[in-house]
Amino acid sequence: MTSTPSRPQSMAEKILSRRSSTTVYAGDLAVVEVDQVMIVDSIAQSVIGVLADLEATPKFPERVSFVIDHVAPASTVSVAQAQKEAREYATRTGCRLFDVGRGICHQVLVEEKLARPGWIVLGSDSHSTTYGAVAAFGTGMGATDIALAAASGKTWLKVPESVKVTLSGELRPGVTAKDVALEMIRMLGADGATYQSIEIHAGERFSRGERMTLANLCVEAGAKAGLVVPGGEVLTAYGYDFPEWVYPDEGATYVRAVHIDLNTLNARMSAPSEVDNVHDVSALRGLKVDQVFIGTCTNGRLEDLHAAAEVLRGQRVSPHTRLLVIPASSTVMEDALRDGTLLTLMQAGAILGTPGCGPCMGRHQGVLAPGEVCVSTSNRNFIGRMGAADAQIYLASPAVAAATAVAGRIALPEDVREGAVA
Amino acid sequence: MTSTPSRPQSMAEKILSRRSSTTVYAGDLAVVEVDQVMIVDSIAQSVIGVLADLEATPKFPERVSFVIDHVAPASTVSVAQAQKEAREYATRTGCRLFDVGRGICHQVLVEEKLARPGWIVLGSDSHSTTYGAVAAFGTGMGATDIALAAASGKTWLKVPESVKVTLSGELRPGVTAKDVALEMIRMLGADGATYQSIEIHAGERFSRGERMTLANLCVEAGAKAGLVVPGGEVLTAYGYDFPEWVYPDEGATYVRAVHIDLNTLNARMSAPSEVDNVHDVSALRGLKVDQVFIGTCTNGRLEDLHAAAEVLRGQRVSPHTRLLVIPASSTVMEDALRDGTLLTLMQAGAILGTPGCGPCMGRHQGVLAPGEVCVSTSNRNFIGRMGAADAQIYLASPAVAAATAVAGRIALPEDVREGAVA
Repeated sequence: MTSTPSRPQSMAEKILSRRSSTTVYAGDLAVVEVDQVMIVDSIAQSVIGVLADLEATPKFPERVSFVIDHVAPASTVSVAQAQKEAREYATRTGCRLFDVGRGICHQVLVEEKLARPGWIVLGSDSHSTTYGAVAAFGTGMGATDIALAAASGKTWLKVPESVKVTLSGELRPGVTAKDVALEMIRMLGADGATYQSIEIHAGERFSRGERMTLANLCVEAGAKAGLVVPGGEVLTAYGYDFPEWVYPDEGATYVRAVHIDLNTLNARMSAPSEVDNVHDVSALRGLKVDQVFIGTCTNGRLEDLHAAAEVLRGQRVSPHTRLLVIPASSTVMEDALRDGTLLTLMQAGAILGTPGCGPCMGRHQGVLAPGEVCVSTSNRNFIGRMGAADAQIYLASPAVAAATAVAGRIALPEDVREGAVA
Repeated sequence: MTSTPSRPQSMAEKILSRRSSTTVYAGDLAVVEVDQVMIVDSIAQSVIGVLADLEATPKFPERVSFVIDHVAPASTVSVAQAQKEAREYATRTGCRLFDVGRGICHQVLVEEKLARPGWIVLGSDSHSTTYGAVAAFGTGMGATDIALAAASGKTWLKVPESVKVTLSGELRPGVTAKDVALEMIRMLGADGATYQSIEIHAGERFSRGERMTLANLCVEAGAKAGLVVPGGEVLTAYGYDFPEWVYPDEGATYVRAVHIDLNTLNARMSAPSEVDNVHDVSALRGLKVDQVFIGTCTNGRLEDLHAAAEVLRGQRVSPHTRLLVIPASSTVMEDALRDGTLLTLMQAGAILGTPGCGPCMGRHQGVLAPGEVCVSTSNRNFIGRMGAADAQIYLASPAVAAATAVAGRIALPEDVREGAVA
């Protein structure tokens, strides 16, 4: 913590320095102000228990959000009981509560501007790296750390080393941010960035939602944070203030640098049972699929439903395949309802579900039977993630997922265009 | 079976005579042709098991429908496995399959015209009395009887005695078919019509959906069937053929006759924990409610969503109450999407769910926590039905349910009209 301020800093170092009111570098310990603590239903009882043991309550209730999303609406009495306790605790202490149906924690916090540039956002969910899409240092923590942060308004952490991911060129039609994210994970490896900050230099590319997809997947390389360097008008249109101190310095230290040439990237798919087992979709084409799931904090946004609808318009889901579409939030669902997207999806045979995490964790709303094959737009495909241990999960973009639903087999959008021979 | 054909017959006797090609009266045994066998996901494995034990397959596959609705999408691996077996069996044997998201068995069979006037429809679900709405003799049976009916195309049953329910007058505004049904159950008692056929003389009143609500509740008095005497243009508009032989004879024998004067009927509510514990809603007004559920085979149709939307338009659901709306079928959902009803519901804060049975049986999508209070448009409120043993379930019409959601307490629609003091 005695480093000189003149050494160039990575984005993580910049934000953690600012929020610790000191100057820190990778390897230093930092005690930082926490701008938002997010607690999901599945861990709420544990967090509340730790707070009770400490005889503490949230120091800044307005900086604490409870989100009931993981198994919502409740599927068992014990789940319902946990949600009831979270609801009552939030109401009693004046914390924010986003109840059943409002949507997935990460999507809701971004929509509600409870993650902002330069903020420290701690979530009781590993995909809290998602907040890096808006230049917030977002990271997941366990119940004890979350409770202590809520009680004190602060947390401590070791400043992570940074990995630099640079994108160049332009995506080809049909290739998406999800494909970039999967390729990034392939290059880094499933534990290739353990406790590091992945700093993504995307220039002015990508919407807020696409940046969320990129930052979301960072934890799948083991990263502590995934920070997308701000850029582009699409992002500023949301009215964020991007202070100078969130941008990385020229000459900052990176432990590793990888480069992705978007011009040559194809639609990608992660095959069972490791997220970094990534291949071109064309190499997996033709495998029969039982269930397709479009949703989650990775790819359940309006733009994702639009991408799916574009493929599904005028088509029908294969009779031997179930297509579940679960919007990431009530706002997404309402927007998709207003603009006709939901109707397009339903007409194609999609099964709509309540906004929330859906079957992503295999806890309800589409659990896989033994031997079933699923193509999902989510972020994890390890053994048993969505149900039976021998079910197979393939991760892909919404466009590829939609095409697969129509073909009933792994397919690319061009395979199912009218007149195409699948 | 030796009775003379000249004795006047009830509707049940008429249909069972016709379908057994003989003349039967209450107390006789009849072997009847079965026009449709309906098997839901939760009992499919048992039915398939009995068929395997018999080394039999469905004799008329086109008369057998599998419907995956009870816990759909699947909430556990074992549920998913059962659904997989049902799906594979239906496909292999050429039976009809209505998969996840198509909707609730009874709604789907009526929509698909798989229940018609004079038909015998057996379902592996107790609310199979619903088919009486279209003058089909519908009844629920267990796995063995269902399997035998599928294997042989026939079933045998004792011809039930009949109870005559006569309606007179006209419903007042805000009073609905659901209130008539609840009042009927109160008058008959929860086991007051055990193994009897409730024959409802409604004249030309009521839509097909309202008649489904009436017939649906009949099993709550223990009835074997609930037959609504055909009448009215609303019903014939669906294109059904109502043969003379489905109508009851003048002078038929009834073991009991009850009369409901619609002119004096108020909005009714069944209080915990017996369905016949029916009171005026005004007597229960003010009780704080945690969850409102609008849906099920009783009240999840388009007209029910319209009734709810009429109350909810421009209003907001109480912040301490969750409003779940689960359309009875994908057709209902798509229609409600097209005509703006879903948008009205969402704008009011309703949580939409996948078409199916929802939390009606307490198996997923809105299970109640200990101590919670629920107002539901469903048909059963016994202890533990929707979750915790000490959760309280009140049954009401969609309009009352919607008003309750706005007030956060049991309320009538007039209580929550703009400007009303709740």
